[in-house]
Amino acid sequence: MTLRARTLLGPGPSNPYPEAQAALGLPLLGHLDPLFLQVLDETSERLRQVFGTANRRTLPLSATGSAGMEAAFVNTVGPGDVVVVAVNGLFGQRMVEVASRCGAEVVAVEHEWGQPVDASRVLQAHPAPKLIAAVHAETSTGVLSDLGPLAAGKGDALLLADCVTSLGGVPVRLDEWGVDLAYSGSQKCLGVPPGLAPFTINDRAWERRIDKPQSWYLDLGLLGGYAGEAAGSGRTYHHTAPTGMVVALHAGLGRILDEGLDAVHARHAEAGRMLHAGLAELGLELFAAEGSRLPELTTVKVPDGVDSATVRAELLDRYDLEIGAGAGAYAASVWRIGLMGPNAAPGKVALVLAALKDVLGR
Amino acid sequence: MTLRARTLLGPGPSNPYPEAQAALGLPLLGHLDPLFLQVLDETSERLRQVFGTANRRTLPLSATGSAGMEAAFVNTVGPGDVVVVAVNGLFGQRMVEVASRCGAEVVAVEHEWGQPVDASRVLQAHPAPKLIAAVHAETSTGVLSDLGPLAAGKGDALLLADCVTSLGGVPVRLDEWGVDLAYSGSQKCLGVPPGLAPFTINDRAWERRIDKPQSWYLDLGLLGGYAGEAAGSGRTYHHTAPTGMVVALHAGLGRILDEGLDAVHARHAEAGRMLHAGLAELGLELFAAEGSRLPELTTVKVPDGVDSATVRAELLDRYDLEIGAGAGAYAASVWRIGLMGPNAAPGKVALVLAALKDVLGR
Repeated sequence: MTLRARTLLGPGPSNPYPEAQAALGLPLLGHLDPLFLQVLDETSERLRQVFGTANRRTLPLSATGSAGMEAAFVNTVGPGDVVVVAVNGLFGQRMVEVASRCGAEVVAVEHEWGQPVDASRVLQAHPAPKLIAAVHAETSTGVLSDLGPLAAGKGDALLLADCVTSLGGVPVRLDEWGVDLAYSGSQKCLGVPPGLAPFTINDRAWERRIDKPQSWYLDLGLLGGYAGEAAGSGRTYHHTAPTGMVVALHAGLGRILDEGLDAVHARHAEAGRMLHAGLAELGLELFAAEGSRLPELTTVKVPDGVDSATVRAELLDRYDLEIGAGAGAYAASVWRIGLMGPNAAPGKVALVLAALKDVLGR
Repeated sequence: MTLRARTLLGPGPSNPYPEAQAALGLPLLGHLDPLFLQVLDETSERLRQVFGTANRRTLPLSATGSAGMEAAFVNTVGPGDVVVVAVNGLFGQRMVEVASRCGAEVVAVEHEWGQPVDASRVLQAHPAPKLIAAVHAETSTGVLSDLGPLAAGKGDALLLADCVTSLGGVPVRLDEWGVDLAYSGSQKCLGVPPGLAPFTINDRAWERRIDKPQSWYLDLGLLGGYAGEAAGSGRTYHHTAPTGMVVALHAGLGRILDEGLDAVHARHAEAGRMLHAGLAELGLELFAAEGSRLPELTTVKVPDGVDSATVRAELLDRYDLEIGAGAGAYAASVWRIGLMGPNAAPGKVALVLAALKDVLGR
């Protein structure tokens, strides 16, 4: 196996924070070791802080972010339940698919890709849904949507937010906004390798959950006996937690909270601004709607006459630099540049701009 | 966080092979990086060798072993399908639960815990099941069951095997026996941290799979576009693979194959024999039926008048040594001692025997 140290500026995974990387080298602990359970409890507490919630049921699920999405739906939605999904990119589409597999009656509110969610259209789509779902930061388009208006107008519905690309990069304040449940992934702005899905659910959603979800692995009622629900008291074995990964998440979150959430968000914002300005200087056009652009994930239109894949391969081969292709219909016409976690830094912005300038011959 | 280097001689996770631990320190790769895809393909090939199969659809699933179980059922069993499950421990019981959540009509063939699966009873339980499921090495009881007779008599049914605790510890020869699909976990005899579920499915089972499983995350039809099915050709993004964990699994499997599968199995067998003999010398009684005892996971009866939890806590505190409690009804009356992966070694046997002798005052 040839080893290469890549700079990961795609849509994720990002290079991890050094604290998270170092934690993977620590001696492995058992999943019922009191030392590990303490780390797990602290991890839940740290997740509460980055999610902006007091939900006691906050825990890392033992799979990647997409399993977080599946956990959200299988635990709250059953056959015939009405679910309204705001679709403004690939991950909204995925929500429609996952909710459908739970037997839900799904009302998909389609948006043009690159645009933020239009809360009024979403809220008017159905008079009484059980659940409304939206993506906070669409990884496929680099668009940030405002969750506040959805929460304000949700009425009796539950509000579910996909925070995979937002958590740790831009402010997330679930309780202040009124989001009932949310999930994320470890490998983006949290700066931890992929493998865990941070998850949180409030009492309101908990009380209306499905009693026996179709997934045993993601059954929050059973998981609650091991983490979150039972924190500090007796634990029930459910499955073997990926202890090493949880220790890495604990360390990545510790780094973020030590730096300070506001400072971390400001660092992502500053890196994004630098990148957007630099791309404009190169004569490149951004894809996401102005005013809704994520600092941590930028979508750029591939210039006419340029082959997207050739450029990405050259960046990888010559610069050990990964950027992402577009998603869905924009696979070949858009690039995605991530500045996540430790990569939200001026040096990484300078690198990707210099490399693009060189490879594009600008 | 206090750091302790534990010797993990419970039912898993085990301490990883040093190669796997070291691999976690390597620079992280993206999940679509050609270098990573090469590692993924090689990992599938190495898994074929340890599973004893030529199945092209062999891959590590992005979650722990229990998700491997869920993947097996959701992809093969739907409402009304008849499933016969051999239940001789906790993981057989779990199979019943997971199959039930798929809507299957489950015929559970109960065995006394500590006994191996009685193939004739299982085969006579139903005239025409769609699927027969059994646990190869019951982690809850330390019992090995013979899969050959089940395969020989399965008729038109599919045969599913849980190889979580057997893979990498005792011989697994799926194709020779006639097992159609199987799953495992990374954290036991494969000597890799927890977080991945090695999985394999043959063409026979593939052709009868559920078209649209209730789980999107574990949908093998979709996963096949990324790994296994599409190996070497075009890849379709499904979810972000836990790249660091896959690189660690690749390294752990490499270590096992370098040592040689026969040598690895012999090492586990030898360590198990030493432990069983040593426990007898201490006057302790084994729980699993003679002739069906796993070398890599030994169940021992807690002596009368001894408090299981106190002994385990003392082993952990004084010796940094983890052994496991029993499972189910035997939680307090049985201990489980694992000798898995790198821990299948004379030094570890000597350690646990000496520590038990001391703590039990024998």
